Amino acid sequence: MAGDNGKSNRSTDPAVQEMIAKAESMNVFTVWDRYEAMQPQCGFGDTGLCCRHCLQGPCRIDPFGDGPDKAICGASADVMVARGLDRAIAAGTAAHSGHARHLAHTMLKMAEGKAKDYSVKDGAKLRTVATRMNIPVEGRSDNDIALDLATAALADFNEKDTPVMWAASVVTKDRARVLTDLGLVPKGIDYEISEIMHRTLYGVDADPVNLLLAGLRCGVADLAGCYMGTDLADILFGTPTPVVTEANLGTLKADAVNIAVHGHNPVLSDLMVTVAQDKKEAAVSAGASGINMVGICCTGNEVMMRHGIPSCTHSVSQEMAIMTGALDAMVVDYQCIMPALVNVAECMGTTIVTTMDLCKISGATHIEFSEEAASEKAKEAIDIAIQNFTRRKGNGVDIPDIRTPVVAGFSVEAIVGALAKVDAEEPLKPVVDNIKAGNIRGVCLFAGCNNVKVPQDRNFTIMARKLLEENVLLVATGCGAGALMRHGFMDPTNVDDMCGDGLKAVLTAIGEANELGGPLPPVLHLGSCVDNARAVALAVAVADYLGVDTDKLPVVASAAEAVSEKAVSIGAYAVAAGLPTHVGVMLPVLGSPLVTQVLTDKVKDLTGGYFIVDLDPESAADKLLNAIDERRAGLGL
Amino acid sequence: MAGDNGKSNRSTDPAVQEMIAKAESMNVFTVWDRYEAMQPQCGFGDTGLCCRHCLQGPCRIDPFGDGPDKAICGASADVMVARGLDRAIAAGTAAHSGHARHLAHTMLKMAEGKAKDYSVKDGAKLRTVATRMNIPVEGRSDNDIALDLATAALADFNEKDTPVMWAASVVTKDRARVLTDLGLVPKGIDYEISEIMHRTLYGVDADPVNLLLAGLRCGVADLAGCYMGTDLADILFGTPTPVVTEANLGTLKADAVNIAVHGHNPVLSDLMVTVAQDKKEAAVSAGASGINMVGICCTGNEVMMRHGIPSCTHSVSQEMAIMTGALDAMVVDYQCIMPALVNVAECMGTTIVTTMDLCKISGATHIEFSEEAASEKAKEAIDIAIQNFTRRKGNGVDIPDIRTPVVAGFSVEAIVGALAKVDAEEPLKPVVDNIKAGNIRGVCLFAGCNNVKVPQDRNFTIMARKLLEENVLLVATGCGAGALMRHGFMDPTNVDDMCGDGLKAVLTAIGEANELGGPLPPVLHLGSCVDNARAVALAVAVADYLGVDTDKLPVVASAAEAVSEKAVSIGAYAVAAGLPTHVGVMLPVLGSPLVTQVLTDKVKDLTGGYFIVDLDPESAADKLLNAIDERRAGLGL
Repeated sequence: MAGDNGKSNRSTDPAVQEMIAKAESMNVFTVWDRYEAMQPQCGFGDTGLCCRHCLQGPCRIDPFGDGPDKAICGASADVMVARGLDRAIAAGTAAHSGHARHLAHTMLKMAEGKAKDYSVKDGAKLRTVATRMNIPVEGRSDNDIALDLATAALADFNEKDTPVMWAASVVTKDRARVLTDLGLVPKGIDYEISEIMHRTLYGVDADPVNLLLAGLRCGVADLAGCYMGTDLADILFGTPTPVVTEANLGTLKADAVNIAVHGHNPVLSDLMVTVAQDKKEAAVSAGASGINMVGICCTGNEVMMRHGIPSCTHSVSQEMAIMTGALDAMVVDYQCIMPALVNVAECMGTTIVTTMDLCKISGATHIEFSEEAASEKAKEAIDIAIQNFTRRKGNGVDIPDIRTPVVAGFSVEAIVGALAKVDAEEPLKPVVDNIKAGNIRGVCLFAGCNNVKVPQDRNFTIMARKLLEENVLLVATGCGAGALMRHGFMDPTNVDDMCGDGLKAVLTAIGEANELGGPLPPVLHLGSCVDNARAVALAVAVADYLGVDTDKLPVVASAAEAVSEKAVSIGAYAVAAGLPTHVGVMLPVLGSPLVTQVLTDKVKDLTGGYFIVDLDPESAADKLLNAIDERRAGLGL
Repeated sequence: MAGDNGKSNRSTDPAVQEMIAKAESMNVFTVWDRYEAMQPQCGFGDTGLCCRHCLQGPCRIDPFGDGPDKAICGASADVMVARGLDRAIAAGTAAHSGHARHLAHTMLKMAEGKAKDYSVKDGAKLRTVATRMNIPVEGRSDNDIALDLATAALADFNEKDTPVMWAASVVTKDRARVLTDLGLVPKGIDYEISEIMHRTLYGVDADPVNLLLAGLRCGVADLAGCYMGTDLADILFGTPTPVVTEANLGTLKADAVNIAVHGHNPVLSDLMVTVAQDKKEAAVSAGASGINMVGICCTGNEVMMRHGIPSCTHSVSQEMAIMTGALDAMVVDYQCIMPALVNVAECMGTTIVTTMDLCKISGATHIEFSEEAASEKAKEAIDIAIQNFTRRKGNGVDIPDIRTPVVAGFSVEAIVGALAKVDAEEPLKPVVDNIKAGNIRGVCLFAGCNNVKVPQDRNFTIMARKLLEENVLLVATGCGAGALMRHGFMDPTNVDDMCGDGLKAVLTAIGEANELGGPLPPVLHLGSCVDNARAVALAVAVADYLGVDTDKLPVVASAAEAVSEKAVSIGAYAVAAGLPTHVGVMLPVLGSPLVTQVLTDKVKDLTGGYFIVDLDPESAADKLLNAIDERRAGLGL
């Protein structure tokens, strides 16, 4: 259960705590040790007040006014901080859209008959998305539509006269207008990234507000990348529907070949799940009970949602999966993969298998993935795991006996489907009516990572408990979802304990209408971090139903333990979409009072959204409740 | 004359020294003061050993092994340094290609009849470039060809199945093969930038060699951006031919309306030159002798080459132009524009006019440029200057009486044209024969900026003197050209004093064949920093003539006082093209012995090129001479 365990200030997850103790006893250096060794962290970097964008630097500005107040080029603290933030947004956007582009290529190759291991799994979603992209669907084959859709997706990366379709067509009409008026509609995803890199070069943009607006536009390009990633993954691998599964290190099995898929893109991991079934016999021949596939981070979310694959652990505790000694292979694609994994893996006999050209790790085993030979590559990786199992068979392993029940897989389609059981004509009516009646006070999205600076999961669990008690409907993605699932927030039996009466009634009513034999879980698992797009889709659906823009909804977001630059770019699009957006760790912006003020206040006048930076989860929850109430009041509720 | 003036350790340029003294006496804080105030600079940043690519950081690795040897994520010093370098290359690539894209848009608008102020100025080059890009030219109008060419240029930014044309088609056939074999052919300029940003995200690429190879590929994309920039500018504004003009602060005129154009792109500055002629009367009515247009940095190089506009100053001394008190307006586009200009301008009564959306400066006057209303915008800017002149008229100004004669404008076409006067059938034969005979020992390109860490121009002038004495043919671009022109290296009368006998004979023979009444200048001015593409074009022409690849030529490059991330990306493509490439300031790579070794040695086995990092200009010149001799020996010379 949540955050009430004082054994360790490193993680509030008891399974992780066990493995931290083991690592300590074995003198294995982990992320927390590296964090401690890094203290004190650089105060200039922490506040955004250092710059390495040219060879005259590095420059540092003293936030206390004792040192230089300008960079060598004359850049002010405001400019320096805004530039740094922009590059983080560009990097986050590049990552999400890189993931989406990979899916677009996979779809294209599939449609061209070059990637036989893939097919259209959700023809209905293919048609819905294609229609949104103005691609004809009537009387056409899935394949033909997929070809056009993949081509349209790839076109969205390029600068063009028309806006990025995956941005402009996925928000409310009013929001599209607001973004157009503010110049925040991206022209092309890659284009905006490139433009940010130009703009933040030595001697280019030196107007902090201009820099921040460009950053927001790049953030909207990030929304496009995320939304595209979700759309294409659903079409290729199926749109998630609720599945019952489990989370935490206890999902590893001593007698099985344990394979963790880690990273983000389902393009390999989804196939791994299928191929693992074919390889069961080989595993049994090697003396194993079978192959036990588990997930880590967002590729874990992807295969959990679509196949019920358990999540082993998330984010900051990824090394701990290896510390069990039970993991035979960790097959990674890209993003959030700590290079340190290879060191822990070496100690514990796990093989780290990298698969993507752009994410190799010194010391790992590399199998170059290709869509054309996807199954074959998946088999190669599984064979490595089986071989490793043969070596470790009979050796002791330390698998914490901790597993939490999880109901996952709430795509927007699944949510609307469940609501349709309550009101078939107007599925959103039950939610909206309950918002109006106050049974649902508002909606909060929990997203983002675990950050080593926060005792793992603490912020998520404290905030979620408080908001649930206050009848806020919670949805979660990424390692935020991971944190909450490992602490029982996706276990329907905890609704009684966790939720306020109004919310409890709603979750129970929907559960009963769907004959689930109980309520929906306290927190709805929306998916991986690209699936923050699902949160936007949900908000847009509700806004359209109510006839208001998204900045009027009692909807808020929180990245309570953010790490990746992707969290920064997601935050940027949440703010561009009009949401009050909490970040629970310090962003490197405090060195500029101006930037801080623009992000936390002034931007509200432009987009309606704004950042709330608060490291205290209790007061952060209060602020989100206030923001929700303000929005409710605005709607006359 | 060069680098022998000990009055100041800030600049070896006597005109700049005068203004530094004035700034001191007026207590105006300049780049050198900000540099001193910044001491000591951060040793972590200096060696590439800090990272802010996620919110768990900032991380620092102690290069002396006393602190942590890994980042919190486990990234090694090698990974950290390679990531940082990659992002610098991506930024440089974004800047050059942003400049080129701007020209492509201008050409497209011109061809579509939307930008009446522009036209095809060099139809022959249009046809040459179009043919290289497989665009039909026979029987077609300039406009039709330009439309196709601009479209092809814009397509090169996008990921596609075919390589970036402006990269693949501009190198030797052998080099294209080498790059293809190494996976170094970019798929799209924006694509490669985006891919670098993805790859360098938290938890993605952690293989330093893999990171460096991606950086080199992005560098090749930078070559494409530069080459495209040069091609399109020549077509729209004319291919440079030699012009006689002057350089240094003495080109300002007390009684004229002085306007400096500063930045990089001729798209506005070239028009400013034309429009200034129409505005002469208005200036005279305001009591001025006329309008005196001068250039700073690369937009200065652009208008110097094409219109003989004098260069006022360059790079690190840009504030000094304002310190004269004689500058009425400084009209800037983008790149290398110190934000500090507005502060000095405020003291001295100059107006800084920004013109591009992506380069605003707090405190400057912004006129939003558009190709559709280009002349009108240019007039607006000139009117501001005239108004300012009215205010300062009669006040004292301090214009150092220092001007150096300059012969500039040696495009490859101009060089080949001059050589054709010696051998009409085989224009390159005279150069190649003289290389073979040893009259020309080799060729060195001087490129890049002035860096505040080096007494201004010191490295350039010491190295150039030494290499000229040793009969190395010198070409120069950017602020490297600026440095050399201000010290007399582009004055033909200095050939006798500066050049070894062999080189002197060659320069004189070519000068005589062209009836110049004297030799070519000691250093040939190739243009702005995108015009490093001209150096590549020249090397490729010679290589093709000799039937060898560019990595076999006795051709070297030096960025002796580099600043911008653009210098890093240029360095990357110089190395990819096979050139020994000197950098005269420290790159932030010393924190990784591996990265340092790859860049300065191992990469030689791949591309034939490599970096030489040496802060001592004397020994750097020796190393370049050695590299030249090694290449000569390789050719059996």
